Amino acid sequence: MQGVVDSIAAKIIDRVRGGGDRALREISLELDGRVPDHFEISSEALMLSGGQVSGALKEAIAVAISNIRVFHGAQVPGPVSVETQPGIRCSLRYEPIPRIGLYIPGGTAPLFSTVLMTMVPATIAGCREIVACTPPGAPPEILYAFSLFPNVRVFAIGGAQAVAAMALGTETVPKVDKIFGPGNAYVTSAKMQMAGRGVAIDMPAGPSEVMVIADHSSKPAFIAADLLSQAEHGHDSQVIVLATSMVIINETLAEIERQLEQLPRRDTARLALANSLAICVRDMDQAVEISNFYGPEHLILSVEDARGVAGRINNAGSVFLGHFTPESAGDYASGTNHTLPTGGFTSAWSGITTGAFMKSITFQEITREGLERLAPTVVEMARAEQLEAHANAVLIRLMTE
Amino acid sequence: MQGVVDSIAAKIIDRVRGGGDRALREISLELDGRVPDHFEISSEALMLSGGQVSGALKEAIAVAISNIRVFHGAQVPGPVSVETQPGIRCSLRYEPIPRIGLYIPGGTAPLFSTVLMTMVPATIAGCREIVACTPPGAPPEILYAFSLFPNVRVFAIGGAQAVAAMALGTETVPKVDKIFGPGNAYVTSAKMQMAGRGVAIDMPAGPSEVMVIADHSSKPAFIAADLLSQAEHGHDSQVIVLATSMVIINETLAEIERQLEQLPRRDTARLALANSLAICVRDMDQAVEISNFYGPEHLILSVEDARGVAGRINNAGSVFLGHFTPESAGDYASGTNHTLPTGGFTSAWSGITTGAFMKSITFQEITREGLERLAPTVVEMARAEQLEAHANAVLIRLMTE
Repeated sequence: MQGVVDSIAAKIIDRVRGGGDRALREISLELDGRVPDHFEISSEALMLSGGQVSGALKEAIAVAISNIRVFHGAQVPGPVSVETQPGIRCSLRYEPIPRIGLYIPGGTAPLFSTVLMTMVPATIAGCREIVACTPPGAPPEILYAFSLFPNVRVFAIGGAQAVAAMALGTETVPKVDKIFGPGNAYVTSAKMQMAGRGVAIDMPAGPSEVMVIADHSSKPAFIAADLLSQAEHGHDSQVIVLATSMVIINETLAEIERQLEQLPRRDTARLALANSLAICVRDMDQAVEISNFYGPEHLILSVEDARGVAGRINNAGSVFLGHFTPESAGDYASGTNHTLPTGGFTSAWSGITTGAFMKSITFQEITREGLERLAPTVVEMARAEQLEAHANAVLIRLMTE
Repeated sequence: MQGVVDSIAAKIIDRVRGGGDRALREISLELDGRVPDHFEISSEALMLSGGQVSGALKEAIAVAISNIRVFHGAQVPGPVSVETQPGIRCSLRYEPIPRIGLYIPGGTAPLFSTVLMTMVPATIAGCREIVACTPPGAPPEILYAFSLFPNVRVFAIGGAQAVAAMALGTETVPKVDKIFGPGNAYVTSAKMQMAGRGVAIDMPAGPSEVMVIADHSSKPAFIAADLLSQAEHGHDSQVIVLATSMVIINETLAEIERQLEQLPRRDTARLALANSLAICVRDMDQAVEISNFYGPEHLILSVEDARGVAGRINNAGSVFLGHFTPESAGDYASGTNHTLPTGGFTSAWSGITTGAFMKSITFQEITREGLERLAPTVVEMARAEQLEAHANAVLIRLMTE
């Protein structure tokens, strides 16, 4: 199956590379059954979308943006400057990645929250040009979310062709330096194929997951609600609970059955639960060990000493401490980012941070005296690597009066 | 040509995935003509290599390590913690990537400096397990450089099969989370193919390059020496000089001819120079504009106001300020890292930093009062995304006494 998806995505990429806008139109017609008159959604259309969004939702979005802005504003990585030895100053500074691409999927549930999670840090980072693609017929919530950020151009293009257009550039879609955002199997395949050619991406995608660590202080009804809020995402969601007692596990399972009844997405949640696990652990040490081995995207520490346990976590995307911190708070509005690496990838990848929209540049400045002191080191090493011109670039400077 | 390289590398990856150590032995025999008795180089062998390295080189390596350590030690990214609104604390902490893989190429020139450039920051970051591969018959300088770091296991495996072994794991080679280091076309292809499957890598590779910006204060002999030290790297190296006067350009070209005569690698350098450019710019503004557009791996600011110009650079790998800061100082020993993104990639990728060996985890802790305040926001957004269980995870907590 992955092979089929990959080869379809590869053909789409090739068509966009060869045909630009014309290929985008043809592919949109074939796959979406329609082509907008203009791929770019005008800023007027973005503004007008606000008329279809309730005041309450607008207010909620404003609170979420405010919290996301506070936390991501605090993340701006600062410069570094040190004298490594007398006369040699090394420094490092972060600069925004100039051109950012963002994919927002279509589908039944309008994921406008992902617009906030990328647009806020991209804006704080100072990215010069932000391009977003979303399938034709985007719901007003998504257009409204974009309208809150003046510095973005939104295109009504979906699927692998949108990723290809942003990675390669076409007549109307600008080429970007890094691509962010989730998507279906074709979008993900296109993103990973572009990553294989050096295009920077936020992170590889995997099914969403939550792990809950529970002890005697846990409330089974809260655990069940957290597990279900993950399970309703999709049939391939993973939910795992590690509890220090069978009593908690049994009560949680009973609570899940009770709460499931009332959920509109209970069929999806049931499918996800079928692949999920409840594990009775010996003690908190074993729970931490399993959690760090698995490296969950979301980790809820539903335990008495949540801060103590949090200090021992070294593989996870985002961690929720205590009994009043549900995962859904972080999904929307606590201020943390909800675009996170999943299980296999938390060991090496980070969730989206403000730094993900920046890159670092290093600088060095050496005085004549500093170079005199460093010269024997550089010359010795250059000659050992058989690079005489490297040695000469030092020596010629010291031979001059 | 790239297609052929990619398909050979893909076959090697498939063989290693299917056959593990047995495949590694077969491939080593086919490609290197030999298989070591044990892939792993013992720590005794690493230690003994020191006997074949001169005291002067050992001392130079010690100085380089010291400077690299000072600068990379200053880069350790600190934690962040803020209250985004009353009762909601969001924080972020960096943790080492547990398992790191490092490839060091073989070939005529022993690139032991790259060992330092990766091992120092990996050690500072606190990576638990560091695996390195280098082709059989590594020169003593490389083995000696590894011997200076207690926490690394070195394997005598080269080529695409080494990358595959570290990315996938075999019976003797541990699977790693992120792969660092340069290599030939097959190594690079294997690395990018693994990147396309979500394996984290340091950065995509490209031909090495230097850009020099020169003004009336420049010394043509210094510029020529810097251009040649880049040109001697390989026939595909790019060297470009942007000068504010034709006089500087002409004198630089004459100096290049003079200095070339004395270089052992002059044939390689001549090939690289054939593809290189000298551009006479209108003024410093135009030079900065061209440089930021090109985004050079190495940028030498051979100008009077080097700090002023450096402040305007936003796309580059590593920048060298003033007349006494040759690129070769940064290649070996100033303290900056020499593993840098090249032209097309500096816009989105950073050179190796200590942070490249770490990933971030976010944390949030909400009080009951904080959740009460945030509840309307989360519930409103969750319902607009049609995720009722997300809303319920908040509401159920507030319904409890």
